[in-house]
Parts: sequence; structure tokens; C-alpha cells
Amino acid sequence: MELRILGCHSATPKPGEFPSAQALMAGNQWLLLDAGEGMQMQLRRYKVKFGRIKHIFITHLHGDHLYGLFGLLSTLRLLDRRTELHLHGPPPLERLLDEVFRASQVELTYPLHFHTVTADRPYQILDEKHFTVHSVPLRHRLPTTGYVIREKPKPRKLNPEAIARHPEIGIWAYHKLKAGEDFIREDGSRIPNDELTLPPPPPRQYAYITDTAYLPGIIPHIEGSDVLYHEATFADADAALAEKTFHSTARQAAMVARDAGVGKLVIGHFSSRYPDPRVLLDEARAVFPNTEMAFEGKILSF
Amino acid sequence: MELRILGCHSATPKPGEFPSAQALMAGNQWLLLDAGEGMQMQLRRYKVKFGRIKHIFITHLHGDHLYGLFGLLSTLRLLDRRTELHLHGPPPLERLLDEVFRASQVELTYPLHFHTVTADRPYQILDEKHFTVHSVPLRHRLPTTGYVIREKPKPRKLNPEAIARHPEIGIWAYHKLKAGEDFIREDGSRIPNDELTLPPPPPRQYAYITDTAYLPGIIPHIEGSDVLYHEATFADADAALAEKTFHSTARQAAMVARDAGVGKLVIGHFSSRYPDPRVLLDEARAVFPNTEMAFEGKILSF
Repeated sequence: MELRILGCHSATPKPGEFPSAQALMAGNQWLLLDAGEGMQMQLRRYKVKFGRIKHIFITHLHGDHLYGLFGLLSTLRLLDRRTELHLHGPPPLERLLDEVFRASQVELTYPLHFHTVTADRPYQILDEKHFTVHSVPLRHRLPTTGYVIREKPKPRKLNPEAIARHPEIGIWAYHKLKAGEDFIREDGSRIPNDELTLPPPPPRQYAYITDTAYLPGIIPHIEGSDVLYHEATFADADAALAEKTFHSTARQAAMVARDAGVGKLVIGHFSSRYPDPRVLLDEARAVFPNTEMAFEGKILSF
Repeated sequence: MELRILGCHSATPKPGEFPSAQALMAGNQWLLLDAGEGMQMQLRRYKVKFGRIKHIFITHLHGDHLYGLFGLLSTLRLLDRRTELHLHGPPPLERLLDEVFRASQVELTYPLHFHTVTADRPYQILDEKHFTVHSVPLRHRLPTTGYVIREKPKPRKLNPEAIARHPEIGIWAYHKLKAGEDFIREDGSRIPNDELTLPPPPPRQYAYITDTAYLPGIIPHIEGSDVLYHEATFADADAALAEKTFHSTARQAAMVARDAGVGKLVIGHFSSRYPDPRVLLDEARAVFPNTEMAFEGKILSF
């Protein structure tokens, strides 16, 4: 997987500080996570090819996660896109898009399929060839959903040295070996699969959790993530404000990362009240050392 | 007046190429003209103080003139604005804003007054202390209005040398002299106003004309403008495309400028098909030499 962070600030953006928007390469396609204002410009800046976008996921309908969507969908029309696009988000989004495009009197050139994501329970919302996407209900001021993208197990790898020792294994058998089957000779005897193949790299998992109050209940749903992006709007000194506005502190994000045993934590959605958000990074690292700070243009391969 | 161009490209923006958005300083307030995506960031970048924005004018509801409005209005709320804001635009805009803010479940902290601008006839839409604003119906794919901002005549200037020759003129009379009245002595005799005062600087006028097909009918409404901003989406070679999409070529913009006798023409709203829009500038200058090209961050004082 490869993650490109296009925007990671909370509302009231300043020049060069874009609101929430990410692109994740999974299964040879770009998944878009949230669509803050300016997203289409950021997609171009960071070389995310529009033609390889098939699914867009919106966490909730606050403007700093949404107001770049209308422009992006319009631009895809102007680029004469014809392939279908899938949009996953809270129920009112479908009607809102209708209103926006009706006001502009534009018709899209491509089929736009809207998939309602309800925030009442966690469930699998997408099953693609190479990955699945699950929703994770969060706790914010309006219905909000996080997303977990999980690669499917890859086929086992052939062990060329082991196979060379058995001339009776023809190329025709490789497919079954990769799928984990034993090799069965003509006489019915069998070579166990694990003598001929190596385990595949473990499937990767990415969790995108924003915006939310501190919510340990999500831990079972994000466990085992290689990378967790978790909002960290406030510093510890403003914990009361975090609670009041249904946001998390950096320390709370780190507690979730630690208790879910994720590989790496990336914090973002910084309030503009912190001229230097490294204070948030320090507070998170005190709890979960393998924490990194999001920034526009950050690329993570895992 | 002072004009700051915040964005001047047509749809499908690229990094650093913002869609239509301008700020005009008139009568000690910033008037905003259109609100393309990213406008709030551009306002900050080019030092347009949010607190001095009172009126916003939207020409039409295509996304490249509109999709920055939602974010700007939301940010004013987060900045806890309390003073009223006036929004002028086509009728469906009011309902659209209702839908957007209902979806986000946000309430504005300030009174937002919506003023419908109908594109059926030119008329005065605003009468402020120091200037007026008139609408100019344009010809585009959906109802579209240009705007003409006209300063009111300033008071005449006192001529200190002339007044010094008449010790009978007290300070109490200055106000009436500035208003153009003659000075009347106690014996009833009179000193003509033009012996005591100088004419004020002529009132300034700015015309904002976008998006539109070539439309000579607007000329009487924009005559006498010190600066005319006119869209110039296409080059002459693409005149057929301009006609089909209800846009103007650079040459057509220049013809309007010439026939309206404006002081200066600024062209913008360039199609992304021209890697170097100077080809548009050359075509316009062949018809109207005093033409300049818009660019993000351009400032014009007049």
C-alpha cells in the first residue's frame, strides 16, 4: 500500500494548509479518503492519476472533509470521464450532490454510484478483488465513520530450489501450489505444500480514523493495522475543549494506537491554534513512540 | 479602488491555478466577486481581511465560480463572526446554501442576508454610502450576471489659496462649499463655488464580466469603466468552441473593451488548453492595446 496525505489540517485553512484529504493505493487503484477543499489541486500536485480513482470514502459532512468533492466530481466530468465512480458516505450526501449539480445545471458524463454508509454499527462496505473496506462508527458531533482497508491474503510464493528437486512438478501445477494445495504424484503420493512454497507477505491494513472523540471501543476493529491515521486536533492542555467538540488529543490518539497494537501511528487534523504542531507529536510519542506527524505531501509505503 | 485577483482560471484547476475569485476595495470595504474553490486560502494569502468583507457577489452557479463559497462562509463562523454578511447571486443559491449547511448541521454565528439577482434585466442591486453596484445580464449556459461597481461623486476640494483671499469665509462654510454651493455673504452677495473649490477626482468604475458569449449589448452598461475584467476563455482559433460553450475569445473581449471605451482591459478565465495564455494577450492587444493579463495575486490600483 502507499498512502499520500493531501491535506491534514482542520477547518480554517491557511495558504498551504489543506483540510482532510488522502489517497491510498491498494489493489492497483487509488482510494480517496475524505475530500477537503482544494483536493483536486492536491491530487494533481501529488501525481494521483484521476483515471485510477474508483472509490471515494467520506467520513462525515463537515466542510473540511467535504467541500473539495463537488469540484473534483465536476472536473472529472470536464475531463470526459466515462467509467463508473463509487461514492461512500453518510445518507444526506446523495441528496446534497443532487442539489449542487442541479443548481449548476450540469450532468455528469460518468455513472456515479452512491453507497450509503450508516454509522450505527461496523460492517464490511466493500469487497474488491484485492482488498476489503470496513466501516468503523466514530463519536463526533454528527454521524461519522472511519474506514479500515484490508488487503486480502496473497498467494503463496513458489520456492524455486525446492521445486527444482522434483522434476515431476510441471508448470501446470504452479497455480495450485500458490493456492496452498499439496502436490499429488501420479502414484497418489503427496508432497506437502509447505515443502514447495513460502508464505506470502502478510496482508497490509490501513485505518483512517477522523473525526472522533477518544473512543477505545474502536480498538477491536483497527487491531493489526500496519498504519493508523488518527485525528489529534488538540494538545493535552486543551483536553476539555477536545471533549466538548468531540475531538481527540494527541495523547488519546496514541493511547488508541498503543492499545490496538498498530505498527505506526500518523497524527493529523491539527487545530490552527498550534503554530508548531510538533507539540502534538511530542505528546503522542510519550505514549506511543512510533508516531509520525502528517503533513501535506507526506508519502508512506508499507 | 484596488482590485486583487485571487483566481482567474476556468475549470479543471491545476496547482497554483485557482478558479474565478476577486476582491475589490471600494468605500473602505472588500467586495468579493465570485468564489472559486480555494478562495478562503487565497484571501489569506493576499491579505484580504475577513472582517472588512460585507458583500459577496456570485455571477452564476457553475462550480468554478462557486465551490469556494461554502468553505469561506464556514470559516467565518469558526472565526466567530457576528456582523452581518450580504450575499448577492442567482435565485437557486439560497436554497443550495440551506442544503449544504443543513447537511453539515452547522449554524452560522452571523446574519447572512441573501439577495436574489435576476438575470432578466440590468438594474441597481446595491446603494452603499460611497458606491453603487449594478447587475448586467450576460449570455451563458445558465443565468449569469456581471457586476459594475461605481463610486459616487466625491465632494469638491477646497482651494486654500482662493479661500485665503476671502477672510469672511469661516470654517463653518467649508461643508457647503465642498457640496458645491456658492458662498453667500451677509449682505446677500455671492461668490461662485467654482472660484473657491476644485473639482473632485472623477468617480472610479469597475466592471466584472464573466462568463459570457460575445455580447455587445452590455456596452452601454459598462461604458466609462476605468477597468474592465472580461473573460477570455479561448483563442481566436477556437472561436467556434467559444460560441458553442457560450464563452468569449480574447479578441471579442477586446472588441467589447474598445467599443465601451474603457480605460484598461484585464482578461482572464483562461482555458487550461493554453499552456501559455500569452497567446490570448497578444490577440486582445491587437484590438485593444491597453490590455493586461490576469494572474493570481495581481493587484491593480485605480
